[in-house]
Amino acid sequence: MATIKDVAREAGVSPSTVSRTLHDSSLISQETKEKIWRAMKKLNYSPNFAAQNLANNTSNIIGVILPPNEESVANNPFFGQILQGITSVCNQQAYMVSVATGKDNAELIENVQMMMERGQVKRFIVTFSQQSDDVLEYLDQNDAEYVLIGEPIKNIAETLYVNNDNVAAGKDATEYLLDNGYYHPVYVYEDLEEMVQKDRFIGYSHAMEADERTPLSYQIKKEHTKEELQEFIDQHPEVDSMVACDDIMGVTLQNGLLAIHRNLADYGIISFNNSLFARASHPSLTSVEIFPTSLGMEAAVLVLNVDDRDFTKVKHVSVPHKIVERESTKR
Amino acid sequence: MATIKDVAREAGVSPSTVSRTLHDSSLISQETKEKIWRAMKKLNYSPNFAAQNLANNTSNIIGVILPPNEESVANNPFFGQILQGITSVCNQQAYMVSVATGKDNAELIENVQMMMERGQVKRFIVTFSQQSDDVLEYLDQNDAEYVLIGEPIKNIAETLYVNNDNVAAGKDATEYLLDNGYYHPVYVYEDLEEMVQKDRFIGYSHAMEADERTPLSYQIKKEHTKEELQEFIDQHPEVDSMVACDDIMGVTLQNGLLAIHRNLADYGIISFNNSLFARASHPSLTSVEIFPTSLGMEAAVLVLNVDDRDFTKVKHVSVPHKIVERESTKR
Repeated sequence: MATIKDVAREAGVSPSTVSRTLHDSSLISQETKEKIWRAMKKLNYSPNFAAQNLANNTSNIIGVILPPNEESVANNPFFGQILQGITSVCNQQAYMVSVATGKDNAELIENVQMMMERGQVKRFIVTFSQQSDDVLEYLDQNDAEYVLIGEPIKNIAETLYVNNDNVAAGKDATEYLLDNGYYHPVYVYEDLEEMVQKDRFIGYSHAMEADERTPLSYQIKKEHTKEELQEFIDQHPEVDSMVACDDIMGVTLQNGLLAIHRNLADYGIISFNNSLFARASHPSLTSVEIFPTSLGMEAAVLVLNVDDRDFTKVKHVSVPHKIVERESTKR
Repeated sequence: MATIKDVAREAGVSPSTVSRTLHDSSLISQETKEKIWRAMKKLNYSPNFAAQNLANNTSNIIGVILPPNEESVANNPFFGQILQGITSVCNQQAYMVSVATGKDNAELIENVQMMMERGQVKRFIVTFSQQSDDVLEYLDQNDAEYVLIGEPIKNIAETLYVNNDNVAAGKDATEYLLDNGYYHPVYVYEDLEEMVQKDRFIGYSHAMEADERTPLSYQIKKEHTKEELQEFIDQHPEVDSMVACDDIMGVTLQNGLLAIHRNLADYGIISFNNSLFARASHPSLTSVEIFPTSLGMEAAVLVLNVDDRDFTKVKHVSVPHKIVERESTKR
């Protein structure tokens, strides 16, 4: 029976290109797709992964590991979209997607262990990146293959991962404000220990420095009071706009400014993730779309082709971002 | 080997009570738990479901069917919590949880079929209730067992389901406003064809009628303009409070009132779901918590014990709700 590799060789492309064609990815040109379809036809290829798995003695199940801590999943519509991206690719290739959750790393690892032992699951997608690498270490020690969504903390060279370029996204968001006539954007964040927030801040700083402006950042924690925001605004009358680390922070900022009787029309606000929060707020938030469904799809393509790793040399996929313009940056 | 049924008979309780004790449910009294633990010890019971499955020739996988349509999952943090509830119970009993998604019912059914054929999955949790019952019909026709989260549209008597009592929740929310000195709450919704929104409206109407007030409802669709809201508010100067069909509608209302220069302190607003939207808005929204994690856990307990159906007679579990008080209903 012909495999994805055979089709790839016949068509002169990489196996991941074949796989993307199978799920009709918009990243592959029509021309390439047709070339691949011809190769499939010639080799009489049918994407019957289950039969291949049977021969290989592995399960046709991809494990998806959600972050430990109920709150982070509950508060982030993001994970639902990532999961849909993963299942859309896997199901199409006759792979099932099994989910592991846990209230902490220990419980998560227990559940991963159960999946490996009882379900013969050998390939995983880890949907989060954290400072503690217990989970990844467990996977490494047990010879599981995995793809990370997010940026690896260590072993970057050996890790397969899919992410957004958050530095570039931070830079683009800031340049958008500067190009639209704002002079003094401040970066507003909750926790710079979080990789994503830090990367977006680095991008913000690059854009400011390139334009010979001084970067300014402001932290809003959960227990933040409106008096503190009032003080910051009073001390920085030059601030005319804000780069919020994500949509929820964007909404928090809008509410905070209203609470201290500021006119939202006086401040440009851009945020990230383009979630429902950006659309539901008033004025609606200009936000950087990060395509979580694509993050999930790309991770699935990588993990399904993990055995072809030496052949493809694809270790990292960067999913593009896009600024979605709304009312919050219209003067 | 002793089964859950044997333990249940020995302890004089139902199998689902044993199952709940296994995952340490707070719904079971300490006394009952101890009785069950004694029975387990006596019978030398160990919750090895995988071994039992092997004997029964079924897989140890529970299929979870998410709603068709990416938007509904992306916009509803709810599904992440339901999924976590399901996996926490299933993983603890050595069951894996596999997820089916699809952009429409046809794709969803294709993926369910794949899970049944290739993965030997025979038990499902359907996380949504819709007018079209293609998916449930497919499951019925193929002798799959399932538990529905939400209210069945037909075959109520034969369907296993878990839901919130949304009529009672709507009534409680309305009574809360009346008890707190508001006189004319209006029910604000997007689509009364949606079962949940309709049930909450029925509950609202009951509370109003019991208090000899006339129910009033107002629809806000996606393309709603601030002029329309202005007109409604002008025509109904008596309205002093709002029962919003969910948190997102609560935030939409707050933004709409701000857009027509109303003082939010003049309106009491209560909403449902107690999601992050309720906490992030300003003023923060009083909201009815519906415990999505418990919905998932209860559905998992039901589906894991589905073979004991005739024995337990438990066909429906209603998960309680609770009003979480915040700033939006403080005069």
